[in-house]
Amino acid sequence: MKRNIRLGVFGFGCVGQGLYSVLNQTRGIRAEIKKICIKHPDKQRPLDASLFTTNRDEILNDPEIDVIVELISEVDAAYEIVATALKNRKAVVSANKKMIAEHFPELLRLQQQYQTPFLYEASCCASIPVLRNLEEYYDNDLLTSIEGILNGSTNYILSHIFENNKNFDEALKDAQQLGYAEADPSLDVDGYDAKYKLLIILLHAFGILLKPADIFNYGIGRIKDADIRYAREKNARIRLIARCAKSNSHVYAYVMPAFVQQADTLNKVNYEYNGLLIEGAFSEHQFFMGKGAGGNATGSAVLSDISALTYDYRYEYKKLQQQLNLAYSCNHLLEVFVSYVPGAKPPCEDFSSISAVHESVDFNYLIGTINLEKLMQSAWVNNPSVSILLTCNG
Amino acid sequence: MKRNIRLGVFGFGCVGQGLYSVLNQTRGIRAEIKKICIKHPDKQRPLDASLFTTNRDEILNDPEIDVIVELISEVDAAYEIVATALKNRKAVVSANKKMIAEHFPELLRLQQQYQTPFLYEASCCASIPVLRNLEEYYDNDLLTSIEGILNGSTNYILSHIFENNKNFDEALKDAQQLGYAEADPSLDVDGYDAKYKLLIILLHAFGILLKPADIFNYGIGRIKDADIRYAREKNARIRLIARCAKSNSHVYAYVMPAFVQQADTLNKVNYEYNGLLIEGAFSEHQFFMGKGAGGNATGSAVLSDISALTYDYRYEYKKLQQQLNLAYSCNHLLEVFVSYVPGAKPPCEDFSSISAVHESVDFNYLIGTINLEKLMQSAWVNNPSVSILLTCNG
Repeated sequence: MKRNIRLGVFGFGCVGQGLYSVLNQTRGIRAEIKKICIKHPDKQRPLDASLFTTNRDEILNDPEIDVIVELISEVDAAYEIVATALKNRKAVVSANKKMIAEHFPELLRLQQQYQTPFLYEASCCASIPVLRNLEEYYDNDLLTSIEGILNGSTNYILSHIFENNKNFDEALKDAQQLGYAEADPSLDVDGYDAKYKLLIILLHAFGILLKPADIFNYGIGRIKDADIRYAREKNARIRLIARCAKSNSHVYAYVMPAFVQQADTLNKVNYEYNGLLIEGAFSEHQFFMGKGAGGNATGSAVLSDISALTYDYRYEYKKLQQQLNLAYSCNHLLEVFVSYVPGAKPPCEDFSSISAVHESVDFNYLIGTINLEKLMQSAWVNNPSVSILLTCNG
Repeated sequence: MKRNIRLGVFGFGCVGQGLYSVLNQTRGIRAEIKKICIKHPDKQRPLDASLFTTNRDEILNDPEIDVIVELISEVDAAYEIVATALKNRKAVVSANKKMIAEHFPELLRLQQQYQTPFLYEASCCASIPVLRNLEEYYDNDLLTSIEGILNGSTNYILSHIFENNKNFDEALKDAQQLGYAEADPSLDVDGYDAKYKLLIILLHAFGILLKPADIFNYGIGRIKDADIRYAREKNARIRLIARCAKSNSHVYAYVMPAFVQQADTLNKVNYEYNGLLIEGAFSEHQFFMGKGAGGNATGSAVLSDISALTYDYRYEYKKLQQQLNLAYSCNHLLEVFVSYVPGAKPPCEDFSSISAVHESVDFNYLIGTINLEKLMQSAWVNNPSVSILLTCNG
């Protein structure tokens, strides 16, 4: 049943190095790295030079290599590698959520056409086994919602602000120094990274296949000191929440910062951790928490995927097969808190209702309900002088 | 790949009824209940009488029935049903942890001999997918410890005490009225139920097969009001903790009440919820939480097992196959808090060290380290005038 597999790895950063080390430590797995493709051959490395190549075809065309492990950050190059591998009937393991989110239809088609598995557990919440459980464990439960903290960088920044009384810029700088945020942090800070993960989850949870532009993402970069003070006064914290949920027969989704109360389960998810709440008709409330960033956390998911390939595992996209026919729609009311500098007040007619307006010399905000579709279309949403957060009831 | 299966169900309590209803609601699963074996034919039931039988052989010998779902509480009768089913090459799904813990070697042998799967996800933590993840996701991670709150009844009682300022007797009575504790609650209260689950987890996590008597269990029934007051003063709570962990090359395990501090992850697991912390070399800290009791929570795990059987899934007992050769040993030091009535002070020589002794008119306790083996052998441990809890450093 179980077979030996030979791996061709692309990228040898912290995940690749962790993977190499754990493959040498565990007894159970029958997998070995045959070749590693790198960009910079002159960099000092702890392994024999013969293990490395800079020529991707040396791996992609090697008939002895069964499985490609794609661990690079460039999206276009990664897609080229994955697509070529699948066409060559080599199974692929990847952690590249952006590449998957942008090329999902083609990747589904290639898997189908070449009958070759493509696994990507590490792309969602690193160490937390979310995709495998959605496929295998919650395959027949009637799921109603999935929400969580899916991005470790922003969660580190927000935790640091609330735990250690930092402001946004200090917290971001500390996160960058610790390697939890990129030099260009916009993918994380603006909520794109969380959105790509949510897009992947939507397919495995509800059988809904979307494009990135279909999902509203609003990051944490516009959160003002006054918003943070307001949260503290209310004994709440701010977290970047990704959510998809069923409402009647449609499903909506978004990534937005939200006020989260002390007692909320997601309030316990701190620093580089990710957390996921899964609600099902039968399993009811399930909560998963684990590290959402870092070489080991990501490597553990890559390792599990490699191990699953030794048993010929593949995603069956069960929810897609079940033809649940759930429509995706952003016609859904949200309760939001909007703060703004004088003169940048959003037009009241965009809101379905407004329950509070506060205007003072140093702080202006309103609380009201607004349709998610309206939020996606309104120009004022992109005004840097405005900051939008979901309320605790949001 | 996927096949239609016909189920023969034993027992039609809340889990059986929930299962029936969800099988009619989900689109994906190709399984139908052919017959249900019950004890009391005269009870009013919501389904047609032709679906029921009181004759177990009518199910066990029916060649059209592929899968037996065993949902009764009697241990001996359950084992008979499961063993006969496996011999008749019918796959079995069960939630009966006591039966499994007491008959594990035979159940492994029967699965092997008749090449027939036996799944029991619902036996551990009801809705939380612990066994499947240990088998499939953490199969090659180097696990170091698993600890958790594995019993919903005692956790309900302890939560009720600390959240609502109840004493033990009041909390137990309330739990019984709500159906969270049995009329005879000793299996739960004395830690046996948690121990059976821990025994099952030990096999799937570390490849170690034990008998129930091998694991020390100390329940919550001897916790005194003074212990509860002491916990409150220290801003801690008491939880019943099941733990197995690697220490050098051996593994130890126990079920004991423990003081748990506010910030501890397990402190968030309240009422009928169960929670599980899994530590691995690679995946690091993982936390799972979900309902550990109730018809739906248990039913969701049964449903997932049935669904897995439609894909011919079986446990491979990977850690057992990997021959990790981890020795089981209770030669392990624990830090404990022991309170006692005057005259019942445990002998100091049983402790490796004692760091505190408090004696006053209404409260006597000591804090010290003791070997788990000593704890299992000492007669004073069974004295009802003594109460033992792990400290926060335990």
